[in-house]
Amino acid sequence: MTEDTIHSHLLKSFFCCILLGMVKLNVATPSGFPEFSPAQEAVKQHWIRIIQDTFEANGFMPVTTPLVERQENLIAKGGNPKEMYVLKRLHDQEDDMSHSGNALRFDHTVPLALYVARNFNELTFPFKRYSIGPVLRGERAQKGRFRQFDQCDIDIIGSGDLSVVNDALMPAIIIQIFEKLAIGDFVVRINNRKILTGFFQSVGIEAGQIKTVLDGLDDLEKKGPVAVTKTLLEQGIGEKAIQKIFHFTALSGESNETILQSLATVKAGDVFAEGVSELTEVYTALRAMKVDRRVVLDLHIARGLDYYTGTVFETNLLNADGTINRALGSICSGGRYDDLAEVFTGKKLPGVGISIGLTRLLFQLFDAGIVVPRRSSPSDVLVALQDQAYLPQALELGALIRSWGITVEQYLEPKKLGKQFAYSDKLGIPLCIVVGENEVKTQSVYIKDLRTGHQETIRLDVLPVKLKEILQK
Amino acid sequence: MTEDTIHSHLLKSFFCCILLGMVKLNVATPSGFPEFSPAQEAVKQHWIRIIQDTFEANGFMPVTTPLVERQENLIAKGGNPKEMYVLKRLHDQEDDMSHSGNALRFDHTVPLALYVARNFNELTFPFKRYSIGPVLRGERAQKGRFRQFDQCDIDIIGSGDLSVVNDALMPAIIIQIFEKLAIGDFVVRINNRKILTGFFQSVGIEAGQIKTVLDGLDDLEKKGPVAVTKTLLEQGIGEKAIQKIFHFTALSGESNETILQSLATVKAGDVFAEGVSELTEVYTALRAMKVDRRVVLDLHIARGLDYYTGTVFETNLLNADGTINRALGSICSGGRYDDLAEVFTGKKLPGVGISIGLTRLLFQLFDAGIVVPRRSSPSDVLVALQDQAYLPQALELGALIRSWGITVEQYLEPKKLGKQFAYSDKLGIPLCIVVGENEVKTQSVYIKDLRTGHQETIRLDVLPVKLKEILQK
Repeated sequence: MTEDTIHSHLLKSFFCCILLGMVKLNVATPSGFPEFSPAQEAVKQHWIRIIQDTFEANGFMPVTTPLVERQENLIAKGGNPKEMYVLKRLHDQEDDMSHSGNALRFDHTVPLALYVARNFNELTFPFKRYSIGPVLRGERAQKGRFRQFDQCDIDIIGSGDLSVVNDALMPAIIIQIFEKLAIGDFVVRINNRKILTGFFQSVGIEAGQIKTVLDGLDDLEKKGPVAVTKTLLEQGIGEKAIQKIFHFTALSGESNETILQSLATVKAGDVFAEGVSELTEVYTALRAMKVDRRVVLDLHIARGLDYYTGTVFETNLLNADGTINRALGSICSGGRYDDLAEVFTGKKLPGVGISIGLTRLLFQLFDAGIVVPRRSSPSDVLVALQDQAYLPQALELGALIRSWGITVEQYLEPKKLGKQFAYSDKLGIPLCIVVGENEVKTQSVYIKDLRTGHQETIRLDVLPVKLKEILQK
Repeated sequence: MTEDTIHSHLLKSFFCCILLGMVKLNVATPSGFPEFSPAQEAVKQHWIRIIQDTFEANGFMPVTTPLVERQENLIAKGGNPKEMYVLKRLHDQEDDMSHSGNALRFDHTVPLALYVARNFNELTFPFKRYSIGPVLRGERAQKGRFRQFDQCDIDIIGSGDLSVVNDALMPAIIIQIFEKLAIGDFVVRINNRKILTGFFQSVGIEAGQIKTVLDGLDDLEKKGPVAVTKTLLEQGIGEKAIQKIFHFTALSGESNETILQSLATVKAGDVFAEGVSELTEVYTALRAMKVDRRVVLDLHIARGLDYYTGTVFETNLLNADGTINRALGSICSGGRYDDLAEVFTGKKLPGVGISIGLTRLLFQLFDAGIVVPRRSSPSDVLVALQDQAYLPQALELGALIRSWGITVEQYLEPKKLGKQFAYSDKLGIPLCIVVGENEVKTQSVYIKDLRTGHQETIRLDVLPVKLKEILQK
């Protein structure tokens, strides 16, 4: 065969394969774009409802920004161009360039800044909004790092000013959420960046080095004091200063009240004093809201992000012995910042916010066995179909049960009852109900509880009460 | 000045402008990526809850697929490459090509096909899933056409077979949803494609022309019989055949029972008879579920999409005089298809599904004044702050009211009470509560109802009951 005929031959067999459906397409999700199983997704939806309900119970309004923003705006607010995804049409046509120059959002904060800039005159400040949804980052694919993941954010934005007491609302909301999610005991750890930067200045750290020391402090829990000291020394921080800082932050072992009392006696300049005053005010508010037992003041908390300027939060699950679950890291973090959107608005818009990295957190909790998905199906009841002749009765019964506020689905395939029970069992539907000749005659239904194997016949007139009783078991 | 110095001068002033914050960035959303106002978004979230709750109440499981799939898979299932958006990194690096070759989903159906292919062995059939979320299409920007929009889909997928009675579940669910959404009277119009294609064949329409006639039928309501006849004649359809088809579909004016009786007497081949039998079975099931009063059998309904093979649905709002609101078009559509994912699985997977185009529908309803967003804030109560001295009491009160299941937010800025009332009023928060010296002394709170201007003082011990009473007004 000549090269041409080989080529043509190969092409032909290729098309035959397609025609015969024999070309195996790779149906896997793209790398870094994970997917939950139905049972895991059911947990995620349950979490989203609790999170959303709690945000709304505290007066936060939903804001959904587009997935896509103008590229230059995302970059202007510090987006990392190396991780930024842009949107292009597969076949870009010259006659319609309105599709280019747009990039996918990588968080909810920059879109919030743009939203406030777009709608400044229509918004009412302080502006309290929540955003729940996916963000995209072109990161290197690795375990626990996703390229698309859901984040749940709230922020309170002031116009010009924003009382520091708003900072106290954040831990209060975190606590409401994680108490309802009931994944175990937890603490919200709070600090104030002004306390740290003020103290650093007082021990001779130069302004240009403060970020280095903050990062070192952030690494302390993960890497330990020896490694962090070594790094800081290498970066030109004096040994004495490092010792003083470690000695100061070690205060964190004490009770919240002792920490605040001790801080009040330290003289370390105006910025420090301001931080102490703010932290005291935030803690006093948390006591008034009676959530202080979940709160730990911790001078180690720095939060890596550049833009936090005051209060900072981290949330940690506790191990059985009361120590912090460090493997999991912070499950909800945030803080106070001075500048949301000056680059877009020319206005001072201070804010405070928190974020739950939902996708990543759930993957970690599933992996660690802390959350175990139990059921795929939301149905409490399956109305089975034993006999096609009683299909109308089965459909009527399903509609009736649903009208009592019970989630119910119909099985409509002509399969044996055993198969229908197996279907329910696999999906985690607790109850199967059958209606056939006998049941119609006696105005009753046959119920099988798949959790226990228990079977009984129940009269229709007592079914609503009985069904709710059985489901509550 | 030389050209070089002019250039340098321009560059300098450009950077100065940036430094002075004087460069106006265009903060608008990209064309075709719209955004709701807070009050509109509140409606959208309310709708999503009702839709999601109803899907779950009927046993549908949540499935969330990634926004991104492999490009070749989207094209294999009929994605239009001209409208397809692909994802690229802004700076694509040669060392990590795992970011290329992926495109954004343009509907929920193709991702469902891929999801089923990916998880075939773990899934339980019939597989009932819902998906709610954004899809993206690189369409030409025009009024009412968006490049990103939310769709709410449910589908039931059978492995090998799927009883036609499942088709009846779809109108039943549509009816549950739109009764709860309460946007006015509506009907679900139902037809079966086999009735149409069978009848077309019986009047001599060739197989290759059936799609043309179906499209003509779809256009009938919009364009009228004269225009459609002209088009069909131009496409080579005989005048007699067209007359017979119009005469046949005009049966739709009769009652559902009369239509089914008439259809039973028409002899038009096996495919036609199968369609009549299926439509009768679906309608009988809808009667058993007692939702037939919302159902209209309509032989005009064809649905443009190629892949529908049996039952098809459209949903329409009714005008005050009981006629169909044609300006709005179908608010929820769907149908039965034979092949979900054969190209990915090599298996027969018939299904039936419906979709609500949420974003487009809401924009239309807002525009037409059929849905009027009333409130931006979810809060029922604002706890105001008249006097900083009583901040702890205000915070405690807010937490207490929230514990009664009432949505409540705190106002924490040191502003005059009038400003705080104005804030509530603008956001649509009905009640403001103040606690000051007098109230603490008398164990009471001061309440202002911003809807009526009514003010009263209420004792703390009766507040939970009183508050719920006032809010129910």
